[in-house]
Amino acid sequence: MVKIGILGVGTVGESVAKILEENGDIIEARAGKKIVVKKGVVKNLSKKREVSIPLSDDPMDVIDDPEIDIVVELMGGVEEPYALVKKALGNGKAVVTANKALLAYHRYELQELAGDIPFMYEASTAGGIPVIGALRTGLSANHIESIQGIMNGTCNYMLTKMINEGAKYDEILKEAQALGYAEADPTFDVGGFDAAHKLLILASIAYGIDAKPEDILIEGIENITQTDVAFAKEFGYAIKLLGIAKKVGKGVELRVHATMIPEASMIAKVDGVMNAVTVVGDRVGETMYYGPGAGGDATASAVIADIVDIVRGNQGPMLGYKKGLESGLQLLPKEEIVTQYYLRMDVSDKTGVLATITSTLGKFGISIESMLQEPTNDAGRATLLFTTHKTQESKMQEAIEALEALDVLEGSIAMMRIEK
Amino acid sequence: MVKIGILGVGTVGESVAKILEENGDIIEARAGKKIVVKKGVVKNLSKKREVSIPLSDDPMDVIDDPEIDIVVELMGGVEEPYALVKKALGNGKAVVTANKALLAYHRYELQELAGDIPFMYEASTAGGIPVIGALRTGLSANHIESIQGIMNGTCNYMLTKMINEGAKYDEILKEAQALGYAEADPTFDVGGFDAAHKLLILASIAYGIDAKPEDILIEGIENITQTDVAFAKEFGYAIKLLGIAKKVGKGVELRVHATMIPEASMIAKVDGVMNAVTVVGDRVGETMYYGPGAGGDATASAVIADIVDIVRGNQGPMLGYKKGLESGLQLLPKEEIVTQYYLRMDVSDKTGVLATITSTLGKFGISIESMLQEPTNDAGRATLLFTTHKTQESKMQEAIEALEALDVLEGSIAMMRIEK
Repeated sequence: MVKIGILGVGTVGESVAKILEENGDIIEARAGKKIVVKKGVVKNLSKKREVSIPLSDDPMDVIDDPEIDIVVELMGGVEEPYALVKKALGNGKAVVTANKALLAYHRYELQELAGDIPFMYEASTAGGIPVIGALRTGLSANHIESIQGIMNGTCNYMLTKMINEGAKYDEILKEAQALGYAEADPTFDVGGFDAAHKLLILASIAYGIDAKPEDILIEGIENITQTDVAFAKEFGYAIKLLGIAKKVGKGVELRVHATMIPEASMIAKVDGVMNAVTVVGDRVGETMYYGPGAGGDATASAVIADIVDIVRGNQGPMLGYKKGLESGLQLLPKEEIVTQYYLRMDVSDKTGVLATITSTLGKFGISIESMLQEPTNDAGRATLLFTTHKTQESKMQEAIEALEALDVLEGSIAMMRIEK
Repeated sequence: MVKIGILGVGTVGESVAKILEENGDIIEARAGKKIVVKKGVVKNLSKKREVSIPLSDDPMDVIDDPEIDIVVELMGGVEEPYALVKKALGNGKAVVTANKALLAYHRYELQELAGDIPFMYEASTAGGIPVIGALRTGLSANHIESIQGIMNGTCNYMLTKMINEGAKYDEILKEAQALGYAEADPTFDVGGFDAAHKLLILASIAYGIDAKPEDILIEGIENITQTDVAFAKEFGYAIKLLGIAKKVGKGVELRVHATMIPEASMIAKVDGVMNAVTVVGDRVGETMYYGPGAGGDATASAVIADIVDIVRGNQGPMLGYKKGLESGLQLLPKEEIVTQYYLRMDVSDKTGVLATITSTLGKFGISIESMLQEPTNDAGRATLLFTTHKTQESKMQEAIEALEALDVLEGSIAMMRIEK
């Protein structure tokens, strides 16, 4: 028998306890041993819970219990779980966590501290989809060329509704909040931060790149309008919030942003709250992993998979390697990212405006791939929509600043990146 | 350093040796040790090869070499590799194989023989996609409700061309043969046997079901015409050759056949030579794994992933469990499979024919869901296309026999199953 302790018995913790009991037969057959929750740690002992496991409000009751072999961290947050997980590792206990924020900030310290003690985190990224296992083990023969992930179900649900049903951003955000898909303060999801945490975890396994969320380009979906959606449809694109990791020479791009992608690509077909991660390896080619990215049972499925793996006696370093993975690879500064862009701007509807704008873009070496002009409700204004050929982020930022300084520009420019 | 021996240095074996050398840095970082091919075994020593590894024409040079830790079996066939792999296990060597036929016939004996010796086979099913790892480890918390796999790239390529480009079966088979996607004798692929081998492997991990290819329903794509394709499009279906495993009460359906599936489902969107496997777990819900199902480098990617996993010290029983997995589960006899059907038949274009046919179906308790009548080039004939509500395979087989005995029937009936 293997005894585990759970730090944090919320939705996922309750699912873990429930599934370990209800699917106990099949889990025991696969692990080779019975897995029992010896104790759960909660903040509030008097709150009613769905499961009947012994509870404590002191994490040390789990961390210092010599009978507990595996500590499952499901508290959320960064520094508090970090301190506790360090103590658990110090006591020689294996750790399983679903905590993406903890890993976004402390994965390399944790890999160092864990050493040969199993430390697993399948549930931290893309919920129930076993994509960590795929990347850490299944694709180990490959140099990873790129990763593209739809890793935030809230954003994908909202974008799907905006595209398929013509819903407006504000309306669909309210609906998502009512359905429990989005928080009262939705910034962490719609601003791209949640996806960024997950991207950093995947990028560490793939490239050994050390970066914190504040080091990388993170934008959300807040500025997308039905005009953008209509343009995307017209030109054969889907719009997805993607986490992108890409090797370019000795640099690695890491970025999260709303992206126009060809609607024929597999990941463009992933709709609603579902998640998917495409990984291109230099030998295997393109692979994709699809499934539910959130939810108590789906996340618990991944947590238990890690526990089973540890009980089977599996090991190997936390991030999948001990020494430097790819020599000389470095995070590419945001400014040096090269991609195609989509621009939307409102202008005074006067002769010569288009020439002014294209010549301004030209000054920064930016050439136009396609253009659409649309009338607005306001007689004196027009909306211009462009896609550009590949250009560097810094040039685009400078060009946007220059364009916004023009008299003919009304309001600010909306920009989206395009990946083909 | 870990030394491996390769039995069979064909396309995949050459890729394994090449990737171990060319990606040696990253593979060593992930495995923790350098992996070196000590010897390859071939039938014909004088044939020119792409790689320069030491060769022998005697398998025992690998199997009896005490310096070799891992035997990689890439010979193909069933009984010859089985005998050799048994000897390798007897010598305590870990085994990695890409051989689906070997496993389709001997997986349970091999699991027994291997015991605690690592025996891995990621490359045997769906090529470079790490779906064995996902099912064996990533979904271990789940009772598996169903598996649907596009596991034969040849068939998927042909069906995609037939559907997207209106190509005829015979033409596209010739093209696939010219491109090297199909063998001179294509029966193993287009008849569904290749997919069946893979399905049996997945079903063993998911359900612990012991079955041989001859025990299960296997049909191919040979009888599909442009009439069927047009009907499928009209009614919102894609046509795919699917390997299906499904738990129904205490029975497990195992079947391979051309299938109409809703074109909105994720697996319906998998086109060309690509493979994908959808796995539905009772806790995680629907997950899908997508990628290249064949090719030297993609298959070698999976072979090397297994080698790395073994070198990391990972273990666990070959099929993912030691004792009975799901108590009381049994292979459902083919005759008892319940599904929806599509029927195509040519009839004499006379009054009352439709009534005769529907009443014949009615006699077997089969009710019609949708119907299309099409004129043929032959004035006296019409083509009737039906879909039925759910019915039992045995009833459908009896009904087809009864219908084909009718005077009004011209030729035989084409049948396809529908999964929603």
